[in-house]
Amino acid sequence: MRALVWDGTAARVTDRAPPSIAAGMAVVEVRCAGICNTDLEITKGYMDFRGTLGHEFVGEVAEGPAAWRGRRVVGEINFACGRCDACARGLGRHCPTRTVMGIAGADGALAERVAVPVANLHAVDDRVDDEEAVFTEPLAAAFEILEQVRVAPGTSALVFGDGKLGLLIAQVLHQAGARVLAVGKHEEKLALLRARGIATELVRPAALASADAGGGAPPQGAWAGEPAELVVEATGTAEGFMRAVRATRPRGTLVLKSTVAGLSSVHLAELVIHEITVVGSRCGLFEPALRALAARTVDVRSLVSARLPLERAEEALRAAAAPGALKVLVTR
Amino acid sequence: MRALVWDGTAARVTDRAPPSIAAGMAVVEVRCAGICNTDLEITKGYMDFRGTLGHEFVGEVAEGPAAWRGRRVVGEINFACGRCDACARGLGRHCPTRTVMGIAGADGALAERVAVPVANLHAVDDRVDDEEAVFTEPLAAAFEILEQVRVAPGTSALVFGDGKLGLLIAQVLHQAGARVLAVGKHEEKLALLRARGIATELVRPAALASADAGGGAPPQGAWAGEPAELVVEATGTAEGFMRAVRATRPRGTLVLKSTVAGLSSVHLAELVIHEITVVGSRCGLFEPALRALAARTVDVRSLVSARLPLERAEEALRAAAAPGALKVLVTR
Repeated sequence: MRALVWDGTAARVTDRAPPSIAAGMAVVEVRCAGICNTDLEITKGYMDFRGTLGHEFVGEVAEGPAAWRGRRVVGEINFACGRCDACARGLGRHCPTRTVMGIAGADGALAERVAVPVANLHAVDDRVDDEEAVFTEPLAAAFEILEQVRVAPGTSALVFGDGKLGLLIAQVLHQAGARVLAVGKHEEKLALLRARGIATELVRPAALASADAGGGAPPQGAWAGEPAELVVEATGTAEGFMRAVRATRPRGTLVLKSTVAGLSSVHLAELVIHEITVVGSRCGLFEPALRALAARTVDVRSLVSARLPLERAEEALRAAAAPGALKVLVTR
Repeated sequence: MRALVWDGTAARVTDRAPPSIAAGMAVVEVRCAGICNTDLEITKGYMDFRGTLGHEFVGEVAEGPAAWRGRRVVGEINFACGRCDACARGLGRHCPTRTVMGIAGADGALAERVAVPVANLHAVDDRVDDEEAVFTEPLAAAFEILEQVRVAPGTSALVFGDGKLGLLIAQVLHQAGARVLAVGKHEEKLALLRARGIATELVRPAALASADAGGGAPPQGAWAGEPAELVVEATGTAEGFMRAVRATRPRGTLVLKSTVAGLSSVHLAELVIHEITVVGSRCGLFEPALRALAARTVDVRSLVSARLPLERAEEALRAAAAPGALKVLVTR
């Protein structure tokens, strides 16, 4: 079969043996897969992964238990042992011996077929089409915030970052009843949120930098607005962390969604003095995401910026890395 | 009156005008005051403070409302406006215009007399003597953890740091029902905890360093034991943070008590991948501390390592900075 394979040097569409069926596993024929920033990070060396890329997909079960065969499915990406303490606590996402689809020790979904544990499969509602279902995994990561942090109606929330994840998070917090202000650098991306009734603010780093040189203005990248009870850092940048800390009100919560490789310089004393809580947040459960897609409480369709067939997946990867790009989909 | 005054260059016992009474304030005649690491940090430039040092005290109300005069009191150290949003939420400790006794904009208690807002006063139970009552403020900072984080009975807790605050925190978590392991570098300090039934572990940085050079051992300062659900970083060192992160189990909570000045290098991605929650924690409410002192559920007496009269407060400051020192008290 054809697959987009990262060999440590280049990501190429190449021939690979299709996955064979094993106990507890299903083989899914991929209908549509999405490219995530993590895929781009992997091609810069993140996780030291080798193999087929991709962990956002929707497909049809080709091989596996009879009850699943032929069904349209999405699949959770952490392949857990099911026997350890973390798994016993329902936290297979933190199983210490887990592999992760397309990220660590397991081949990914940017291929004709992908192997997935049956336990990880979720059937997709008929009301949700393929180009929506493929957003289940990143949308689940946005819903993860609601699993970790209590968001009362009316909570003031600042979301920094208007990339794919930032746009999903702003919508999830908005539908949960928070008073959201989304802060980003791309007018056309923020406009997607305003169309959903979410307040936005465009920041111009260059303008801020020159104001800074002039004197009294806040330093570059600082947040000049009101601090919020809940702040989400989803810019994917190392500099974003301290800005987010300073935008969080005392005793407030900062959710950290950016996985920035390497060391960041942090003023830890500010967390202590203002008693700020920082919540690291990663993958989420699929159920709330699938429900939101079926109920259309979150819009994902407007986040699709390109569609390319698997044979052109290398081009898709480049398109996803282009400035201003949102979700690039790889189709059959 | 005599007072220990920091002028930006030196801390000297000198003559100062005693505080005069003002609306809403009381003047307290200090019976006993404690020296805190924050006082030592101030003499290195922390907070850019100038004035009388000291924020741990017990004394007698000399001037103020009739109902308070002559009473033995301790006092909360954040002097809040009482009118802002933070104050309305009961968080005067985070009032943006607050002054802080002996730390920011208000003279401290290493003096014959100190001015304290009446709203900040707490009467001291007769069962609590002066050398216990003077621990109310640091003990309240330890109890602050229980206000911020749910500690269920049986919670596994690691406390890094066997300084004054670490010893109080280990005891507070122990009496709250956590399974505490206190990790420190001073056998004689850890012995105080073992006498209270708390498990301890002595770490020898030098031994770890040479083991590290040898190969398979964990890196210097790493935690080789079991990760815990709750970890408290109270070593007061910048290096302590990442060790504490790596000692926290996935989805666990790290309470940050160390105020380290300047920038620390932090692997933020580890917080995200393991979904760790970092809780900055500072001053606490006095009630739970006063109750614990009266009920003797926490031992503070064995933490007193020296007593010196106010006239010798400069010497007291040096004694508090000596390796192995615990609480140095300044008496009348």
